[in-house]
Amino acid sequence: MDYRSMLPWDRDGKKPGMMRYGNRLPYTIFPTLGEGNTPLLELPRLADKLGISSFRMKDEGQNPTGSHKDRFSPLVIARALETDARVLVTASSGNAGLSVTSYAAFAGLDCVVISQENLNKGLQKAIQGTGAKLLLMNQPHERWELMHRFVEEEGYFPVTNYINPPVGSHPCGVQGYKTIAYEIYEQSGNRAPDAVLVPTSRGDLLWGIKEGFDELSRIGLIQRIPRLVAIEPIPRLSEVLVGEDWRKEFTDGHTPLLSIGGNTVAWQAVSALQETEGSAVVVGAEEASAAQEELEQHGLYLELSSATILAAARQLIQKRWIKPEEYVIAVGTSHGWKL
Amino acid sequence: MDYRSMLPWDRDGKKPGMMRYGNRLPYTIFPTLGEGNTPLLELPRLADKLGISSFRMKDEGQNPTGSHKDRFSPLVIARALETDARVLVTASSGNAGLSVTSYAAFAGLDCVVISQENLNKGLQKAIQGTGAKLLLMNQPHERWELMHRFVEEEGYFPVTNYINPPVGSHPCGVQGYKTIAYEIYEQSGNRAPDAVLVPTSRGDLLWGIKEGFDELSRIGLIQRIPRLVAIEPIPRLSEVLVGEDWRKEFTDGHTPLLSIGGNTVAWQAVSALQETEGSAVVVGAEEASAAQEELEQHGLYLELSSATILAAARQLIQKRWIKPEEYVIAVGTSHGWKL
Ligand SMILES: Cc1ncc(COP(=O)(O)O)c(C=O)c1O
Ligand SMILES: Cc1ncc(COP(=O)(O)O)c(C=O)c1O
Repeated sequence: MDYRSMLPWDRDGKKPGMMRYGNRLPYTIFPTLGEGNTPLLELPRLADKLGISSFRMKDEGQNPTGSHKDRFSPLVIARALETDARVLVTASSGNAGLSVTSYAAFAGLDCVVISQENLNKGLQKAIQGTGAKLLLMNQPHERWELMHRFVEEEGYFPVTNYINPPVGSHPCGVQGYKTIAYEIYEQSGNRAPDAVLVPTSRGDLLWGIKEGFDELSRIGLIQRIPRLVAIEPIPRLSEVLVGEDWRKEFTDGHTPLLSIGGNTVAWQAVSALQETEGSAVVVGAEEASAAQEELEQHGLYLELSSATILAAARQLIQKRWIKPEEYVIAVGTSHGWKL
Repeated sequence: MDYRSMLPWDRDGKKPGMMRYGNRLPYTIFPTLGEGNTPLLELPRLADKLGISSFRMKDEGQNPTGSHKDRFSPLVIARALETDARVLVTASSGNAGLSVTSYAAFAGLDCVVISQENLNKGLQKAIQGTGAKLLLMNQPHERWELMHRFVEEEGYFPVTNYINPPVGSHPCGVQGYKTIAYEIYEQSGNRAPDAVLVPTSRGDLLWGIKEGFDELSRIGLIQRIPRLVAIEPIPRLSEVLVGEDWRKEFTDGHTPLLSIGGNTVAWQAVSALQETEGSAVVVGAEEASAAQEELEQHGLYLELSSATILAAARQLIQKRWIKPEEYVIAVGTSHGWKL
């Protein structure tokens, strides 16, 4: 059987970024700021320090607004345009809000971003600069309540989750994360890694990556789906994996790792870990800070939530959950500038 | 004659970023943080506002450290490694310093960055985070004097210019900018634009882009080299083009557009404009600021010096130096986060 007829990418290779994978996405054409096609960096000096043969980082900070969220936004905007939505609303710890409102501005749509009061000033400025209305709330659940009202009463187009327990963001957008798996496969010389480390909040990214590898496996291009690792700032998924009820509220959710904070778990994240025989790793604020400095000293400038990848890799290698000869990729979800 | 045998790129298209053009660069292999291969954005709504049929931006902010300088640094680092240099020294308004020291850190080399006292705090922090020694001077010429001493007395490897009148930065690195021309050609469906707008200080970038198009023309791939436009915050090249001596000191050089500031002109810049029948445009601080806001409202977050592209395009269209039906590309040299 000719599996190549089902390849997830454009054969002539001429389409830019994510559009190359259009036949596997909800839309083949969408407003683009040049998202996707990020480099897979080989980090030999860090691999040496970690004591593994190879350590690679998928650098999602090199996206238009500086995070992986830019693979999500264009597909949601395409849906919004198709359904004649005028105003989008999103509850976000910052990166999704910036990404969605930038694409909305590019496409000429309005956007309301609901975030928390401790949102970094630089992000506030950048979000408002697009013309978005930015509303800052005190408690996480207030964001969803307010968003709920905007959706029900004003008919705004909902981009992210607003129910509790959460289900994840708009599925059209989450499909965009599949392209990370496709790119990793191609950039690895047509093979899958053994494990992929993913800074995680509600698991949209985790789920999308899993879906991408799932498809590659169903097509027959890879034999085995990589084990996915969720990195979290406080024990949430780690508890669920050892029997805790996933619907509960986990601690107060306070952490300086805002982008992967929050006190809830979405089922998609649990499922992605279970289906891939993956794991969850807790990286606290101090450990993240030290990892951030170490990465900077190797020329890599990541935001605190993303810098957790180095600490998580170290933990998993020490536990021997990762073997020295395994092929490990970490997703650097966002650059360090958004202060 | 089979021109394709001389194509400047890797035929199988598998090499990442700039390495694809290795046969036209001083090194075919170099330490990489994933530079190059930036998107060429189509901006239809801005084109409408400008009254031209198409306006495109080459988004160099999507490079590893957020500016076009990342096409320069890896080639200079390759040279430094080959010549057993231990410590690099660079005088920079910020972006080059950050880029060079990030690549140096990645490769395990030390770096001294000499900049000015008004350097943005965010950039200071990012540069120091790599482990570089950062020295802030008061007057522009003091930077070159200090750098001169480091090179002569300590034997540090000079990355940027340190003589007056300036000649431009390390030629190995400047060659890297040729890849912008190659990429533009390919991303345009194998043709050259009519004009390319380039925010300019000493013209390394301008010269590199010109060299790239020159080569494409010599190979026979394009008939005509695009007219290059230097965008500057104060009249420097604009004066030289109408007869002023290029070696003089132009005003006091003070401008909030730090990245394209400075009170000198390098001959390479003059030459690039003359050879391509190009032009120079002055964009002042207020005009740049308005352009920056307008770009943000279209989802594009550029630093002040880079945002000049929109104001410059507008000026040139009003003067009819650019015709509505011409194919115009602007280089967005850096993102807006480095505050
Ligand atoms: C930097 C960064 N990393 C990771 C994530 C996790 O995303 P998810 O909610 O898809 O798990 C986010 C989400 O906001 C983020 O901003
Ligand atoms: C943002 C930005 N744009 C443009 C330039 C101009 O570079 P050049 O000195 O090559 O003319 C620089 C140089 O520092 C820069 O930082």
